This record gives sequence, structure tokens and C-alpha cells, in this order.
Amino acid sequence: MIRVAIIGASGYTGAESIEIILRHSKAQVTYLTALPEECGQIDEMFPQFKGRCDLAVEPLDLNKLASLADVALCCLPHKVSMGFVPKLLDAGLKVIDFSADYRIKDVGTYEKFYQVKHTDTENLAKAAFGLPELFRSKIKGADLVANPGCFPTGATLAIAPLLKNGLIETNSIIVNSVTGSSGAGKNPSEKFHYPNMNENIFAYGIGVHRHMPEMEQIASEVAGSNVTMLFQPHVGPFDRGILSTVYCQPAKEIDAEKLSKLYDDFYSSEPFVQICNESPAVKNVAGTNYCHIFPTIVKGKIICFSAIDNLVKGASGQAIQNMNIIFGLKETMGLI
Amino acid sequence: MIRVAIIGASGYTGAESIEIILRHSKAQVTYLTALPEECGQIDEMFPQFKGRCDLAVEPLDLNKLASLADVALCCLPHKVSMGFVPKLLDAGLKVIDFSADYRIKDVGTYEKFYQVKHTDTENLAKAAFGLPELFRSKIKGADLVANPGCFPTGATLAIAPLLKNGLIETNSIIVNSVTGSSGAGKNPSEKFHYPNMNENIFAYGIGVHRHMPEMEQIASEVAGSNVTMLFQPHVGPFDRGILSTVYCQPAKEIDAEKLSKLYDDFYSSEPFVQICNESPAVKNVAGTNYCHIFPTIVKGKIICFSAIDNLVKGASGQAIQNMNIIFGLKETMGLI
Amino acid sequence: MIRVAIIGASGYTGAESIEIILRHSKAQVTYLTALPEECGQIDEMFPQFKGRCDLAVEPLDLNKLASLADVALCCLPHKVSMGFVPKLLDAGLKVIDFSADYRIKDVGTYEKFYQVKHTDTENLAKAAFGLPELFRSKIKGADLVANPGCFPTGATLAIAPLLKNGLIETNSIIVNSVTGSSGAGKNPSEKFHYPNMNENIFAYGIGVHRHMPEMEQIASEVAGSNVTMLFQPHVGPFDRGILSTVYCQPAKEIDAEKLSKLYDDFYSSEPFVQICNESPAVKNVAGTNYCHIFPTIVKGKIICFSAIDNLVKGASGQAIQNMNIIFGLKETMGLI
Amino acid sequence: MIRVAIIGASGYTGAESIEIILRHSKAQVTYLTALPEECGQIDEMFPQFKGRCDLAVEPLDLNKLASLADVALCCLPHKVSMGFVPKLLDAGLKVIDFSADYRIKDVGTYEKFYQVKHTDTENLAKAAFGLPELFRSKIKGADLVANPGCFPTGATLAIAPLLKNGLIETNSIIVNSVTGSSGAGKNPSEKFHYPNMNENIFAYGIGVHRHMPEMEQIASEVAGSNVTMLFQPHVGPFDRGILSTVYCQPAKEIDAEKLSKLYDDFYSSEPFVQICNESPAVKNVAGTNYCHIFPTIVKGKIICFSAIDNLVKGASGQAIQNMNIIFGLKETMGLI
Repeated sequence: MIRVAIIGASGYTGAESIEIILRHSKAQVTYLTALPEECGQIDEMFPQFKGRCDLAVEPLDLNKLASLADVALCCLPHKVSMGFVPKLLDAGLKVIDFSADYRIKDVGTYEKFYQVKHTDTENLAKAAFGLPELFRSKIKGADLVANPGCFPTGATLAIAPLLKNGLIETNSIIVNSVTGSSGAGKNPSEKFHYPNMNENIFAYGIGVHRHMPEMEQIASEVAGSNVTMLFQPHVGPFDRGILSTVYCQPAKEIDAEKLSKLYDDFYSSEPFVQICNESPAVKNVAGTNYCHIFPTIVKGKIICFSAIDNLVKGASGQAIQNMNIIFGLKETMGLI
Repeated sequence: MIRVAIIGASGYTGAESIEIILRHSKAQVTYLTALPEECGQIDEMFPQFKGRCDLAVEPLDLNKLASLADVALCCLPHKVSMGFVPKLLDAGLKVIDFSADYRIKDVGTYEKFYQVKHTDTENLAKAAFGLPELFRSKIKGADLVANPGCFPTGATLAIAPLLKNGLIETNSIIVNSVTGSSGAGKNPSEKFHYPNMNENIFAYGIGVHRHMPEMEQIASEVAGSNVTMLFQPHVGPFDRGILSTVYCQPAKEIDAEKLSKLYDDFYSSEPFVQICNESPAVKNVAGTNYCHIFPTIVKGKIICFSAIDNLVKGASGQAIQNMNIIFGLKETMGLI
Repeated sequence: MIRVAIIGASGYTGAESIEIILRHSKAQVTYLTALPEECGQIDEMFPQFKGRCDLAVEPLDLNKLASLADVALCCLPHKVSMGFVPKLLDAGLKVIDFSADYRIKDVGTYEKFYQVKHTDTENLAKAAFGLPELFRSKIKGADLVANPGCFPTGATLAIAPLLKNGLIETNSIIVNSVTGSSGAGKNPSEKFHYPNMNENIFAYGIGVHRHMPEMEQIASEVAGSNVTMLFQPHVGPFDRGILSTVYCQPAKEIDAEKLSKLYDDFYSSEPFVQICNESPAVKNVAGTNYCHIFPTIVKGKIICFSAIDNLVKGASGQAIQNMNIIFGLKETMGLI
Repeated sequence: MIRVAIIGASGYTGAESIEIILRHSKAQVTYLTALPEECGQIDEMFPQFKGRCDLAVEPLDLNKLASLADVALCCLPHKVSMGFVPKLLDAGLKVIDFSADYRIKDVGTYEKFYQVKHTDTENLAKAAFGLPELFRSKIKGADLVANPGCFPTGATLAIAPLLKNGLIETNSIIVNSVTGSSGAGKNPSEKFHYPNMNENIFAYGIGVHRHMPEMEQIASEVAGSNVTMLFQPHVGPFDRGILSTVYCQPAKEIDAEKLSKLYDDFYSSEPFVQICNESPAVKNVAGTNYCHIFPTIVKGKIICFSAIDNLVKGASGQAIQNMNIIFGLKETMGLI
């Protein structure tokens, strides 16, 4: 039984991780930590755990951690995470980090978008990027996995087959995404006050969203050349899910039938990617670790639609998928 | 043209009042005030007013108020309001107060439920209770109107014909209400954070909701004897509306047909009360000043359903209905 | 491995049952059936099963059923079910029936409320009522379990401790419930057309809802005497969950502390019932088999709040809880 | 007082038109018609009209129409409308037609996208396209106005200043829109069944949406040259509103400041178009006739966001704006 610690258990991705591990037959949550002011019984913070998980959330104690857990899901915010990850690794644990701190390989880009000096470039260099469908082999032996951002997960899975095969112009990609509100996290704010967010939809992060350089990094790695992307997120009145509509300019001639076959083949052995023959719908992936994709051609442009649950395939589910890989378990364990 | 000042224009009931007056042919908003830290252009606070209202919200200046307005809609919170209302009256304006400060005639009850000493008992004694369908004649000549609470409006309209005619036991009334989330006001909070409130419904104010004594006061006045009510509010995932389901024990024999006729007759000349022959639905009254009511008999008990928009008939619309009455205008003006 | 057939797999409770069994370590879905015109691949009807379940839904073949399954979850509608259940039993399977056909022990009451002659009174007499918390011992050895209605599950769990101990007047119980829209089933209708149901709440089934006699039957059995209940359902703009607010007249003196202890004790060994110290919220039980209850006293009346997921504890989850009991598995298997 | 007939009053745009005219000081609804099987009292079809409008919806009688009305809002479906419009014109009324039948000037394009022969090309040639901000002068003297589609209204207002000034490549425009569910109309369907549409978002009309050629026609007319557009609609879980995100390739150098000034100038005298300095939000235009626009530059591309209410500026509000223009009334009458 793999013993899992959740560092930063007081937020949504921490809770979602607990939810998934409760149904995992080879893993169990053994230790929950948070900032001192956010500690308490997990089932009081999240009453959905009443009768299901009676752990307390405690301030992090590294000795306790070392004795109680084999792996840490580090659900801390960006910038905070890199202060803790080295200690978690030193305590002898495998670490799957949910923040952006170990995702952006180029330190300058990280420092520009996150406006802070990177303090753990040593581990940054070693971290595997935790998108199994594209980088599984590197994840297998990794001590530290940088769990991808939610938008980059959906967007890059949507176009990876095209990038890999040089089928699209790499400077023309537009990613238009709509996310549910859980991506905003647990802290109340004006924008996510129910009477404001309900019956509403709007764009945000215009030109400055931090997932843009992350997308470009993954896409460039898949393409084997420099890729630039225009990413525009929106938020809509629903809890879970991201629908991405990705517009691309073909670099070679391709028809709808070949496109469909290309995707079927590319993802044929991937349990969590499903190719659809019409638009995916976020409700069909909500609560699951699946990514539904539909690629098509309209007026000479390729449009690829993808849907994921931002908290599962876009965060906690993917983390546990990574955990399963690291520990040599069946990749889908706890995730069907 | 009646000149309207809105005191406390930075909240939802202030904005809703502006929205209504924009469509009123004999009234116009001339002055908007708020606490200094909540001032600014109204169309920046509430972008729905872009191009429709270009007033600034300013700190209250009583001289300016006196010169600019004939009537003040005082949208301040409970306890704060009674500090301002005497000044508004002294400035020579008619005042329609949205807070509870002038609703509860019994000072002891007010002080118990609102946990504060009442500092303006003189005006409290003179204030008319602004539920036109039941107390129109007193509103006509009033300088100060206490605009009713949203739940008391819906609940007492639902059973007034029964109370007036002594048809129900006055110690057996149960009011079960579900309100939309706009009742929570504009300030973000954990309960009304979108990811918490969405897809959710729960009870609150159990045994302690401040609208309970207000309901009992109105009901007692209508009945001409002491009425006790058990009021239980809930909040659900929608913006606007209150559905109240009121359970009563008949005091005399009555059948469904007579019940229906009683309601038709009682409200026959009321423009804003409509009797239905099935459950009212909040969506049918949302954005309007109407109250839809359906009275029926089930297993020997009378059940009365009512639906209103909490921000309109439950607040700003009713205030403007009161304003119309005070100034001798057609009662429905601006409200159809 | 228990082999499960789902009869009537094209509806919401069928799909929810598949969803749960996919995570069950000792059961698997082996056979799916529906009316001929509703057959096809399950992952085309319900795209959430893409990559997770590749079974076809086929017209029922009793020989196939007998060879493929140990237990049938019969998700057919009321009145239809009793035409199939005898055949399922004859095929040698245990049967858990989701319809009302085997719930109402009094044939006259059934025939009055369902407006049809009962055609299988023999099995009706033998069927166990599948509310494990109250009737576990009878379920254990049963061949046929009548899975309870969603409203009766939430409402009777809310007051069972009071009924069992004779603490409330048995002719004064008012059950006010609000359900999410999934209870309406899969077929489009005007009331549940999104632009009508969204931002709306209304009552329905006034005085005639079929769960009323079912509630009274269970409550009477628990109380050991005749219980009458006034049940009023409402439907609100959310997918899953039922919040019931049950108003009772105490028959004996009781205070809040004793009430709380009574509930803690009564349900202390029940894994799926959790006692809260504030209003339960449907979102905390959505997607789970849990029932959250909060009993309290207001103005001399007892109010008991309960929340369940109508599709899980109110249907498919409870069915699998019953299945676990019948087959001697841990009762919570697949349901945590 | 302008007397308004609504032809096809049983649908959402008919009801919305009544709603608006109820608040119009120089117009009143005098005649409502629908197919015989959809007739009845308007306040029974749409209970929000109880006490506000007591007209019956009747089968169309052309003599009655001629004697009762000055203008017809023709809210019939595409293909049906062109069978009635000639008769409405012959009856001596001005006609504002909500269907697509008089929008597409190129008969071949119409017949391709609507799969039907056009039967009234004579009036098609004379019809004014009713987007006042772009074609006001032609609307003024028109007997027949083709009220624009909802998506074309939002999308073309978003980029008209760019097109007019030759600032963007006219073969590179991508319009990504999300509409609320009221656009689906009143008839229940699987996609818009509440349990399917709630908490969901998906694309539709991929490559084939009929508003695409309409957009291109308007854009080409504004640009004075042939414009091609890739239009991709999505539908989300809210009632009202369309958010369009339009991606364009600049044809000349332009910076954000000049872009902002261009829009301010272009729309400076338009009452219903407001330029924002951040993303518009559909909730800020819901229930109004306004269009909020934010143009900006990201990574060398111009992105223009626009928000409208699909039922108001996208249908009934714009129709009444057109009516006001035709009859020489203040354009904003009834629409503030």
C-alpha cells in the first residue's frame, strides 16, 4: 500500500486528491498538512469527507512526513512550492508538485511570468513534466514530477498529433478555452461571488495568462521546434471542466478522414484519451481523468476541441496517474 | 419629475432601484451616495449602467441632498440606517428605508434580534410599514416608510386572506422559504463563493432569522390577534426570487373552491398580486414587482405557495411602489 | 466477482449504477438491456463511458441473462417493472428493483396511487424493503429487494430515531423537500427544458406525489403505529440531491442536546449516515451514498434536515449497498 | 401610439418583444398571433405576463391585422416567414422580420444554407438589414427590415471599426462565440434537457452554422471587399447572452492606444454600444439592448471581445430599435 501525504490539503486540489485516493486500492492517504491557520479536521473543512476520512490536517512536520509517507502530492501555490519541495525530497519521498514552479524549464521565462526569483533551479532541471501521454518514459524514473497546468493539459493533448507530425504552422495556433469556476480556488473573491459568476461568462488573463508559456514549452518539445501560441481563457458558470477550441493553420494538405485516423492511431493505447466524432462536452468528462478530443477541418483550418475536468485530468487525477506510473502500478488504478 | 436620491448606492438594492427608476416616466435618480471608500462612477461599479447612468456615487452631503432630491431611498444596512434617517428627514425629504430599523414596532424585540440599542424610537413610532397591499392607507401620508423584508413580503401576502378572516390557527404556521443568492448582498463570502453555492442548497438562520419577528408582527396586525410563526429559510443556486411554502392548520372548515374565491376576491384590485392555479415559479416573477400565489388544501392542511423577486417586490420594486403611493402617482408606474 | 445485469440501462439510474460498479472491486457489469428502440453502445448513449465500458445495450434475452449474471438491477419504470421481475427471479437471479412496484405493501394503496392493477402480488409479499439502515436483517436473505424511492429515503432517515422512540406526534409530520432535476429522468419535457428550469424553483405533485404513501408505510413500520405525513416536493436548478426539511410536533419533552445524542446513538454504527451540527448541504453528499442529517428544536417544534444524492443513496448507490448485503460483501464496497 | 402585432407570439422572441413593449411609452401590443395549435391566453403560455398583458394569441387574420396594427414583428421560423411576410406587407404594415429569410442577399447562398427555394425574392431585394449601428440610413425608410441574427450582431459590431478602416486581413477572422441556452428556443430537446445542459458547455454547428454566411455578408459590406470568417459557436449553461471572442490578423501596424481611440470614435454617438477597458461580461448586458466591446492586441493579433443579450440586442430589442427608427421615435425608447 502506497502511503500518500498531501501537502496543502486545505484547497480544492488537495480535497480532490483525497477523494480519488479513497477509491484507490493500492494507495491510502496517511498524512495531511497545511499552513497552521488552515489546520483542523479534514471532514470539517470538507464535509463531504464525513465518515470517509477522519484525518486531521496538521502543520508540516518533516520527520513525521518521512515516517508516514512514500509520496507527497504537493498542492501548494506557485512560488510557495519551491520552498518546500527540496525538503520533501530530502525526506526521501517521491514528489508530485502541482504548482508551476517545476514546469517551466527556462528560468528566465518563469521569472518573467511569475515575477519571482527561482530558488530551486537544481531540482527544476531534474523534474519530469507530468503529462504521461507525451512524456511517460521520463516520469517513470523521476523523483520529482511537475504536474501540468490544467489549460496546457487540455490544449496540448488536443494538438499533439499535429505537432508531432509537422502538420500545422507553428506560429498560428490559437487556443480559446472556457473553464469552470473551480479553477479559481477556494478563496472567495468578487469575480467568483455567486451573484456575479452565475449566469455569466467573461474572458480574463488577456495576453498575460501564465499557462501560455507552459503550453508553448510543451508544444515546442512535441514539435521539435519553436511553437508560439495565442491562448485566451474564459470562465463560465459551471464547477468543473475546460473546453478548449484550438484553431490551427495546416502546414500540409490533410482531409478530415486522415485527420481522424491520425488521432485514433496516436492515442490508440492511451487509456485516458478518447477521440470523439462530434464536439466533446465538459459534462462527459467531469469527475473523470479522461480527455475527449474531436479534430476536424473547417474552411481550410483545423479545429481541435478537447474537454477535461480541470480538477482531475487537469490536476489531482493526473497527479495520481503520475503516481501510479512512478510506483509501477496500473496507470488507471483509482481513476476509472 | 420626482427627484430620487439613493443612500447606499453601492449595493444590490441600490443598483436595482436605479435600474427601475431608469424606466420610470415621472422619476429620475439625481443623487447617489455611499461610504467614502465605496464611491466612484456608478457605471464602473455596475457596468450594466454604461451609457445608461453616468452619475458618480459620492459621500453623503446633506445640503446637496436637500437641494437635489425629493425622496431618499435609504439602502443602508440594519443598525446603520437609523443613524442617517433622522438627518434625511430633517433635510426635508420623504424617506423610504430598506433596513429593518423602522420595521419592528416593539423596541425590545428589535433590540433582541438585532443586538443593538435603537437610537431613533421617535421616528420608529411614526414610520409606516411599506407593504401596500395590506397597509396602503398608512403609507399615503407618511414621511417615513419602512420597506418590508423580502421574506415577510412573500410569506404574509401568501396568508393574509386567511389571517384576515380568522381561517387558520394562529400558532401553527410554518413558513418554509427558499431564496436566491442575491439576498446575500454584494460582499464575497465562503458560503456564496461560486464553487460552494453552485449546485447546492441548504438551510440557514435556523431558529434565529430576523425576519421571523417581522413576519409575526405583520401577521398579528392583519389577524388582529397574536400570531406565532415558525420560519425556516433556505438558499438555493439561482440569483433572484423567493419561493415560500406556507403550511397552516385550518381553524374553520373550508374547501379548495372557497379558498380560491377568497384569494381572488381579497386581491382582486391589487395590480401586483396574481392568484395562480398551480405552484408559482420564481422565474415567472424574476425581474418583476409581482407576487404569484397559489393556495390549496392537502390532507386537511392549507398550503399557500408564493413567489416574489427578492430584489424587486422584496426590496427596490416595493420601495418604488411606496414612492408612487406617497407622491400620488399611479402605483404601477415604472413597475410593469 | 459478482456479475451484474442492468435491466433498463438507458436511463439515469442505469448509468449511475454502471458508474458505481466500475469502481467496485468485487462486482462487474456483464449485461445491459433496454427496450429495442433504446439499444446501442452504452458509450454512445452516455459518452462518459468512452474507454471505460464498451458493452452494448441489448434487448432482454432471458437465457443470456441467466448465463451472464448473478443479480439484476431492474431500472425499469413503475408499472413496467412488475411485468419483468418474475422472469428475472425465474432466471435464478437476485433482483433489486428500482421501481415502486414492490415497495407499497398495501395493494389497494398501490393501485390507487399508480392507477393500475398489481399483477405480481406474490412477489410483492416476499420483497424486502431496501433501506438497510432500517431493514437490514430482512434484506440479507431476500431474493427480491424493493429499492426505496429517493424522497422516502431522505425523509425517513431524517426522523427514524424520533419515530422509533415515540418522540413525535405521528399525525403532524410535514416533509418539505427540494430535489435536483436529475430526478426527472432522461426524457426532455417542457418543465425541464433548460431555459425553463434554470434560475427557477417551484413545487409539484401537490397533494398527489406517489412517495407520500411510501413514506407513511415506512414511518408506520418504524413507529409501530399508523403515521400520516404531509409531503410536499419542489424542484430546483441543480442536478443532484434532495434536501428535506421535516417539521414535527414533539410528543414528549426533549431538548436539543438529548436530540443530538439520540441521533448519534441511533446511527452510530451506520457507515452512510452522518449527523451534522448545522444544516446539511446537498453538495456535500452529491456523488456519494451518504445521508447527512441535522436534528434541532425551534420554537418547540423539532426540525430535522437531511440531504442525500437522489441518484446514489436515493437510487443506484442504495441498490448496490443492498447488493453488497445480499452477497455478504462489506456494505460500503464501491461506495466510499 | 404605435400599434404592434406580433406574428409568432408563442416563442421566446415574441414574449421578449411583448416584455419590451410593455415598457415603451409610444407603442403598445394590439394583436398576437400563432399557429392554431399554439394559441391561447398569452399569460397562460407565459405566466410572467399575469396581470400585465391579457391578450389572447389567435390564428392570424389578415383583415384583423390590417385594422389593428401599424407594424408587425414577425417572429416566425426561417423558411416559414417568407410565406407570411408578403401578406403582412400587403396588409399595409411595416414589417420587421426576425427570421433569416430576408437577411441573405445572395439567393444561392440562402438556398444552400437553408436547403429551401426562396419564394419571395422580390421583397428580399428591398429589405433593409436591421443593424442600426451600421445601416441606419437604409432602415429609416424601409417597409421591411430583416432583423439580424444574434451571432452576426455581436460579431460584426465587434470588428466593424477594423473592417471599415482596412485594418485587418479579411481572410483571417476567427469568431469564437458562446451563447446562452435561450437561443435554442422554446421546444424541449435532448441537448437542452436541464440535466444535460446544466454544468455543461460544448461546440455545435461546426462548419455549418447558418450565421456564418450572414456574418460574411455584413462584414464584406462594411469592408467594401470580400471577407471570409471562420465562425464557431458554443453553448453554455446560462440563459441569456453571447460572448464573442474575435481573433484578427492586423493588416497595418496599430497599437492598443490607437485601437481604443478608433473604437471610441467609431461608436461615440451610438447609444447602445459601449467600449470597455477589460473583457465584457454577458451578465452586464443581460436584459438590455447594449453591446459591450473590448478591443485589444495580444502577441501581434487583435482580439475583440463583444457581449450582447441574444434575445434583446440579438433579437427583440434590436427589432424595437428598428421600429423606433422607422417610426421616427427616439431610438432608445423602451430600451433603456
